[in-house]
Amino acid sequence: MAAADNNSNRNGNSNSNSSSKPKIVTGSAGYVLEDVPHLTDYIPHLPTYSNPLQDNPAYSVVKQYFVNVDDTVAQKIVVHKNSPRGTHFRRAGPRQRVYFESDDVHACIVTCGGLCPGLNTVIREIVCGLHHMYGVKKVLGIDGGYRGFYARNTVPLTPKVVNDIHKRGGTILGTSRGGHDTSKIVDSIQDRGINQVYIIGGDGTQKGASVIFEEIRRRGLKVAVAGIPKTIDNDIPVIDKSFGFDTAVEEAQRAINAAHVESESFENGIGVVKLMGRYSGFIAMHATLASRDVDCCLIPESPFYLEGPGGLLEYIEKRLRENGHMVLVIAEGAGQDLLSESIQSLDKQDASGNKLLQDVGLWISQKIKDHFSKQNKMVINLKYIDPTYMIRAIPSNASDNVYCTLLAQSAVHGAMAGYTGFTVGPVNGRHSYIPFYRIIEKQNKVVITDRMWARLLSSTNQPSFLSAKDVVEDKKEEELSTPMVDEMEYSDDNLEKKVVSYTC
Amino acid sequence: MAAADNNSNRNGNSNSNSSSKPKIVTGSAGYVLEDVPHLTDYIPHLPTYSNPLQDNPAYSVVKQYFVNVDDTVAQKIVVHKNSPRGTHFRRAGPRQRVYFESDDVHACIVTCGGLCPGLNTVIREIVCGLHHMYGVKKVLGIDGGYRGFYARNTVPLTPKVVNDIHKRGGTILGTSRGGHDTSKIVDSIQDRGINQVYIIGGDGTQKGASVIFEEIRRRGLKVAVAGIPKTIDNDIPVIDKSFGFDTAVEEAQRAINAAHVESESFENGIGVVKLMGRYSGFIAMHATLASRDVDCCLIPESPFYLEGPGGLLEYIEKRLRENGHMVLVIAEGAGQDLLSESIQSLDKQDASGNKLLQDVGLWISQKIKDHFSKQNKMVINLKYIDPTYMIRAIPSNASDNVYCTLLAQSAVHGAMAGYTGFTVGPVNGRHSYIPFYRIIEKQNKVVITDRMWARLLSSTNQPSFLSAKDVVEDKKEEELSTPMVDEMEYSDDNLEKKVVSYTC
Amino acid sequence: MAAADNNSNRNGNSNSNSSSKPKIVTGSAGYVLEDVPHLTDYIPHLPTYSNPLQDNPAYSVVKQYFVNVDDTVAQKIVVHKNSPRGTHFRRAGPRQRVYFESDDVHACIVTCGGLCPGLNTVIREIVCGLHHMYGVKKVLGIDGGYRGFYARNTVPLTPKVVNDIHKRGGTILGTSRGGHDTSKIVDSIQDRGINQVYIIGGDGTQKGASVIFEEIRRRGLKVAVAGIPKTIDNDIPVIDKSFGFDTAVEEAQRAINAAHVESESFENGIGVVKLMGRYSGFIAMHATLASRDVDCCLIPESPFYLEGPGGLLEYIEKRLRENGHMVLVIAEGAGQDLLSESIQSLDKQDASGNKLLQDVGLWISQKIKDHFSKQNKMVINLKYIDPTYMIRAIPSNASDNVYCTLLAQSAVHGAMAGYTGFTVGPVNGRHSYIPFYRIIEKQNKVVITDRMWARLLSSTNQPSFLSAKDVVEDKKEEELSTPMVDEMEYSDDNLEKKVVSYTC
Amino acid sequence: MAAADNNSNRNGNSNSNSSSKPKIVTGSAGYVLEDVPHLTDYIPHLPTYSNPLQDNPAYSVVKQYFVNVDDTVAQKIVVHKNSPRGTHFRRAGPRQRVYFESDDVHACIVTCGGLCPGLNTVIREIVCGLHHMYGVKKVLGIDGGYRGFYARNTVPLTPKVVNDIHKRGGTILGTSRGGHDTSKIVDSIQDRGINQVYIIGGDGTQKGASVIFEEIRRRGLKVAVAGIPKTIDNDIPVIDKSFGFDTAVEEAQRAINAAHVESESFENGIGVVKLMGRYSGFIAMHATLASRDVDCCLIPESPFYLEGPGGLLEYIEKRLRENGHMVLVIAEGAGQDLLSESIQSLDKQDASGNKLLQDVGLWISQKIKDHFSKQNKMVINLKYIDPTYMIRAIPSNASDNVYCTLLAQSAVHGAMAGYTGFTVGPVNGRHSYIPFYRIIEKQNKVVITDRMWARLLSSTNQPSFLSAKDVVEDKKEEELSTPMVDEMEYSDDNLEKKVVSYTC
Repeated sequence: MAAADNNSNRNGNSNSNSSSKPKIVTGSAGYVLEDVPHLTDYIPHLPTYSNPLQDNPAYSVVKQYFVNVDDTVAQKIVVHKNSPRGTHFRRAGPRQRVYFESDDVHACIVTCGGLCPGLNTVIREIVCGLHHMYGVKKVLGIDGGYRGFYARNTVPLTPKVVNDIHKRGGTILGTSRGGHDTSKIVDSIQDRGINQVYIIGGDGTQKGASVIFEEIRRRGLKVAVAGIPKTIDNDIPVIDKSFGFDTAVEEAQRAINAAHVESESFENGIGVVKLMGRYSGFIAMHATLASRDVDCCLIPESPFYLEGPGGLLEYIEKRLRENGHMVLVIAEGAGQDLLSESIQSLDKQDASGNKLLQDVGLWISQKIKDHFSKQNKMVINLKYIDPTYMIRAIPSNASDNVYCTLLAQSAVHGAMAGYTGFTVGPVNGRHSYIPFYRIIEKQNKVVITDRMWARLLSSTNQPSFLSAKDVVEDKKEEELSTPMVDEMEYSDDNLEKKVVSYTC
Repeated sequence: MAAADNNSNRNGNSNSNSSSKPKIVTGSAGYVLEDVPHLTDYIPHLPTYSNPLQDNPAYSVVKQYFVNVDDTVAQKIVVHKNSPRGTHFRRAGPRQRVYFESDDVHACIVTCGGLCPGLNTVIREIVCGLHHMYGVKKVLGIDGGYRGFYARNTVPLTPKVVNDIHKRGGTILGTSRGGHDTSKIVDSIQDRGINQVYIIGGDGTQKGASVIFEEIRRRGLKVAVAGIPKTIDNDIPVIDKSFGFDTAVEEAQRAINAAHVESESFENGIGVVKLMGRYSGFIAMHATLASRDVDCCLIPESPFYLEGPGGLLEYIEKRLRENGHMVLVIAEGAGQDLLSESIQSLDKQDASGNKLLQDVGLWISQKIKDHFSKQNKMVINLKYIDPTYMIRAIPSNASDNVYCTLLAQSAVHGAMAGYTGFTVGPVNGRHSYIPFYRIIEKQNKVVITDRMWARLLSSTNQPSFLSAKDVVEDKKEEELSTPMVDEMEYSDDNLEKKVVSYTC
Repeated sequence: MAAADNNSNRNGNSNSNSSSKPKIVTGSAGYVLEDVPHLTDYIPHLPTYSNPLQDNPAYSVVKQYFVNVDDTVAQKIVVHKNSPRGTHFRRAGPRQRVYFESDDVHACIVTCGGLCPGLNTVIREIVCGLHHMYGVKKVLGIDGGYRGFYARNTVPLTPKVVNDIHKRGGTILGTSRGGHDTSKIVDSIQDRGINQVYIIGGDGTQKGASVIFEEIRRRGLKVAVAGIPKTIDNDIPVIDKSFGFDTAVEEAQRAINAAHVESESFENGIGVVKLMGRYSGFIAMHATLASRDVDCCLIPESPFYLEGPGGLLEYIEKRLRENGHMVLVIAEGAGQDLLSESIQSLDKQDASGNKLLQDVGLWISQKIKDHFSKQNKMVINLKYIDPTYMIRAIPSNASDNVYCTLLAQSAVHGAMAGYTGFTVGPVNGRHSYIPFYRIIEKQNKVVITDRMWARLLSSTNQPSFLSAKDVVEDKKEEELSTPMVDEMEYSDDNLEKKVVSYTC
Repeated sequence: MAAADNNSNRNGNSNSNSSSKPKIVTGSAGYVLEDVPHLTDYIPHLPTYSNPLQDNPAYSVVKQYFVNVDDTVAQKIVVHKNSPRGTHFRRAGPRQRVYFESDDVHACIVTCGGLCPGLNTVIREIVCGLHHMYGVKKVLGIDGGYRGFYARNTVPLTPKVVNDIHKRGGTILGTSRGGHDTSKIVDSIQDRGINQVYIIGGDGTQKGASVIFEEIRRRGLKVAVAGIPKTIDNDIPVIDKSFGFDTAVEEAQRAINAAHVESESFENGIGVVKLMGRYSGFIAMHATLASRDVDCCLIPESPFYLEGPGGLLEYIEKRLRENGHMVLVIAEGAGQDLLSESIQSLDKQDASGNKLLQDVGLWISQKIKDHFSKQNKMVINLKYIDPTYMIRAIPSNASDNVYCTLLAQSAVHGAMAGYTGFTVGPVNGRHSYIPFYRIIEKQNKVVITDRMWARLLSSTNQPSFLSAKDVVEDKKEEELSTPMVDEMEYSDDNLEKKVVSYTC
């Protein structure tokens, strides 16, 4: 059949609908399954094959190796006696029957966006997983992000090539922002005869993967598209935690320690540390909680103001008078409204479409210096530390290494089983296949009206920068718009799952 | 009332039943709640108080701060459309009403058993949690484990005293094995007027805590007993993962790296690394998976044999002939049957009741040397590394630090809310209160007939040391005893939760 | 006598000469000793005491514990058969007779200038050395640098207080730049009855120490002034290496590794790392040599230019075309002439009198970006890393820890023996007492016309940025001004000693 | 000429004397030069060539690049005004004229003995030095130590092959003990046409190198033999410090920290750490001084006894009663006399001829346990840590990396200049060529009757384990045998240079 063997017309319309619909299945007691697409959704009568893992000696002792076709993972886990059961996702793992023969698989891997500890481990384990579990020999690396599909040569990847790469930071494939040209990319996939595409990247990249999947579907190609979510900021929704996050929080401790030592050694010493987090402050929040040496943590989700009573500068002055020194952690996306007031030049866009944010660390450092030099005549010693690239570039720690292995193997199992247009990731600790639209519809953020942030406020003693009025209004709004219990359930669930993953 | 103010007769029988019964609540669709005891179970008419957190500025912005009285956490998370809902546990967190007034609380903390990264963080956060969240000023440290209750002076603990202890390994309170004398301990609790007891330790320690709780209940004392599970081996059931485990796996990488370098630099180099794990091989398994430099991993759960076809020595010889070197990781409890055959002197007991295991690392090293020197005339270079104490003694990493904080705060919230006889820990990523009997009834073990161990076998290429016959018989037995689907569900669930916690 | 017991008039002129003269002793075969001042130079008839170390059990087995009164250390060590013997310094170490009774000693310690790994170790070992070796009980810490003498309270220092401080970065005493007011400082010394002053700081601080010594001498006070040279930049002459330097070079490797990973992962990736070194490039040079991942190293001693043939930008472009990525290390004081051309605002002075240098790392990064964006249409990915404060704030490594111990003990022995107005430091591996004027007369610099720099050029393959004409003229000048052999001897000796200390 | 082109008879006697004589040159004022052999000593009329470095762009700016033919390095550096000048060594570095043409050089590198941090850096820099400085293309690696010369294939080494090896521990060439068969080795050198032999190893290995040199000389071959001293124990005489030593002392801190934490956390906790040092205790001494957490340090040079007054067990008991815990560091060669009394089985020899020492750490741990369990009824908690292989296998730190570079380059310069039969190493901070006989005639040892050991005793407060009588007798003996002043000079000089290298 034309579609299945990749010969379909590039402008072909074997499937008339331009975008796939969510696949929703419901069950008793409020059970909902948000399923992922499958090659058979648009290519009927695909042959299946016995999973080669059945004959793998390493798996011969596994009693129940294959995932039951009905296994799903519950998203809602804090429940009442008679709660509705809520949303579920398809459980990740190997299936009894696969939709590709080992010799026919021609896979490719691409890494996009910024660096993140663990990238090389994911690459390694996709290659090794395909090779050792499924006997797949043809795996290509795409060089330098999306544009590598059409503007670069590919790199053959074998277990030998990737053997030691998990001990190195960065990505051996190279990466870039932007460069997403759907037609050219799908043309390249089609022309090269690639039939499994593994795309590692953040929410922008996953949006791109979604578009690639839709185009492949439109063309009716038998090509599985699997996304592996990568975001050092932990800002991807639904999944528990993104890989590299633990490593990043660990490494951030060095910078906070240094800021603490510097600030303690000078009169009115102030240590300012900028950490990653354009739109979400998870790294800053966790690094602050883990360190316990931080006096103030500013994140994008929590607005603050500089001047006046209850403002940041007043608080800094208070801490200096009390303790003689202080440490301030600021996420790169915090205070963007104040920053834009200051510079009013934020209309530029970088290649991936993120706002080109000015360096908030330099800005806040200058603001603090100005305040104390001009108004207060208090001599301060401010030291600014930006450890961003030193954090991004390290290899992943042991825990992230194991996590990356499971992520990569789950993606491989999914693609082999014919699933496509999915992202893989842990939901309440179980690896699941999640439809793209759930990953890219919004960003995961710190919920500042919930407990984890309260823990932080309690730990740093910083002001909330919220007037009582704000909070009351916020609550009122919520009450009007949603039933109280559900909202509680949902927001809470969301918070706890995203913020603290396995620990809350 | 006598019971409530700790003046009851020590031989008092305000409650006739000598041991508390499980508190089971059922709901629709197969919902089961395994609840924890509460002070009001045996002391009626206890007054309650408004939770002081309501007036805490750090929490003033929290919309839904208090945990809903009906919140429970599902243990079973991989489900089918119409599965029964299964077991749930009470969700941890602060309650609207508490059963202690801040000024009346007199808490104590004890650490028992071996060292584990994070002990000091847990101590710190119980002290700071009680102090900052609930305004509790009286917290005592018990010196040197259980026997410190009656044989030592106590140590007053304040936020200032514990401020920097999370940066140090070990436990500032000291620890010991054994020393559990229920009467003396409860006498001491009663005499000193202690009404909250935080007990940090492994399964033996939690059994002791359970007995202390029963005695306190028998005497009708208003004393909350909270257990915090500590086991570097990750061998406590129900909870996702024990604190310090990630740190231990990370640190174990150093030893494996050294073994790898040593073995590569010498002809027929063999690096043997012994890791912690008396009864369960989680550290060895995860360290092996994270490292990828290990050729063979031996754990207590997976029997092996030395001689003959398919045996360990044959495999070692094969690897040396192929690669010229190899790395062997062995958990301290692996191969105990073989070891006891060799030495037949395992009837001694150490103070906590664990078998006094001979050093399996030295034993296996000698066996390997003997084999190659005597039989094969192959010159080998074996290096044995035992990093146990270097791993146990380091401070916890950032991720374990945040985990310990949540654990300690959950314990504090539970005790303040009047719960007692409970252990705290994350279940599918949500901190929960778990009755003691669920924690101590059995040990968490690596399930070698499931997928994580298969991953390891696949990664090391080592033989399974199981004959096909063993596996078939094993399966048959299972089939007879339990319905297939449920068994699958359960064992799988158990495996995934315990083994990979949030990552699978 | 008035002078000896600190009651002399503050304006007293017991010594008419306002500044002390160098004490030069000559011997056979060209032997020269540049001796240090002694209390007896200006206070005659001081009583001496038996060194209490004679009765110290730890030293009872030492055969030749005390330094012979005639021991001197040769500065010139590369010699010819008949070379003159050259300059020598007085050997550091305990003397048979001391000029202070233990109970009469009242010592103080001050730290000035920027942070440097090892400060706390030096403080610890002065306190412990005075206490354990000489039974001195009264040691004060001066708070926050020179101004602490007159504007702050002092801090009593005991072995218990300083017991663990060597494991922490920074200085427990606090530090500052400037604040040097000779009269107030010497008044404070006199008023408090201090008779041993230990001053830890860089060349500016040592200049201050020299002035304090001169004033003390003028007033005829029996006060020993000992300088301990502290400069993370290694820019103090005569001594082999300053403490903290090894630690700093080690820590700098992290930043260079990160720059290397970032640059390799992006097309035309450029990693720019700024390292310490206002006037000398030792850290940059050693970090580059140790790393071997650096393509270009720019230091203050080696002028460079951006544009045109042989310029930096041309070289960068060449490396990118060849390798696709590059790493640039720049010392903070490099390229100041170019920077000042760019901004022409270098007339400001910071508190210690150093030029307020603009951030050369940000400047060069911008210049490179401008070049490639405007002229060449080559898309580059530049990442700038400034690890300065993360390097300064770490604790010293083991080797620096032992070094700091010897430095502190040597200073204590010298002061007890009545020497004053001296700096202590290793000369060719032997701790010596060096007169202040030799330390402050000039800065130690990388000699770019000698072998160590040639090694670096050879390792990075960067251009020398010198035209052949420059070199020839340079040589000619030298030839005219100095005899060839001596110049060789001297420059070489100077280079090797300063640059590579014990390793060349 | 036959000798020069390696075709001489293997039994040839072009040089009748079977062993080379020391080359001693004397000068004025007691100047003595102990020179190294040169190819022209036994092959007359060798042609010389211009040093290719003259045309190397990296060196074009070096004013005085080449070492003056008369440069020598003074061994005695602490001198009196009229001291004799004493022993000197030939200064290392490039010479104006070389004795090999680049294209004719055929070099080989071998590593022997145990692992040591920095081995791979030395290998890398010999290869890169020969290649980049001298244009030498033919460099072979000998596989697995001496026996690789005749029993293995060689490995071609290029700058590309060795590019990243300095970041890895161990040796890429492999190593072994023993295997020294002079005839076979020199046959192999002759047959393969090798004319530069770089031998990296400890004193046993250098003895082997000396014998190889003598045989090569006897056969009249134009083959330069250069030894690079490798000993993690720092037990090689004359040179300041061996490579890897700093790294080892640094890494040893981890084990001591762990022992400290373990001992503090248990009642009567004792942490025992065994460190490297068969015949000399430098690592144990320096690690103890750097850590400051050690209560007792035992080294081979300082005899001790267990029982009775002033014995080790009494001291341990005293510390436990005072502090409740203690840390003991023991070098692997300490207490051998006691150990042999215990086991009387030390007549075996390992392959390199070292005594097969029993594990003193296990022995002393058992002795301590026995003492407290049997006699004293004091319950102790002893933890034994042996970090040996974890220390040996790490990559070298930055300071050792730079040191290894200079060492390798000095060896290359020496061989190119026709020197042979020499070891390279820093003497008072200047790299020098030292005749083999000075390196192998005795081992460098900690001098326990000098100041560094006194510092340690003072730091730990441990007893000296010497009776006053011992010391007096020791002194008396010395007085009889040597003039007092000289002895002082010499022993002291020796001590300080060897023990503390650049820091004293």
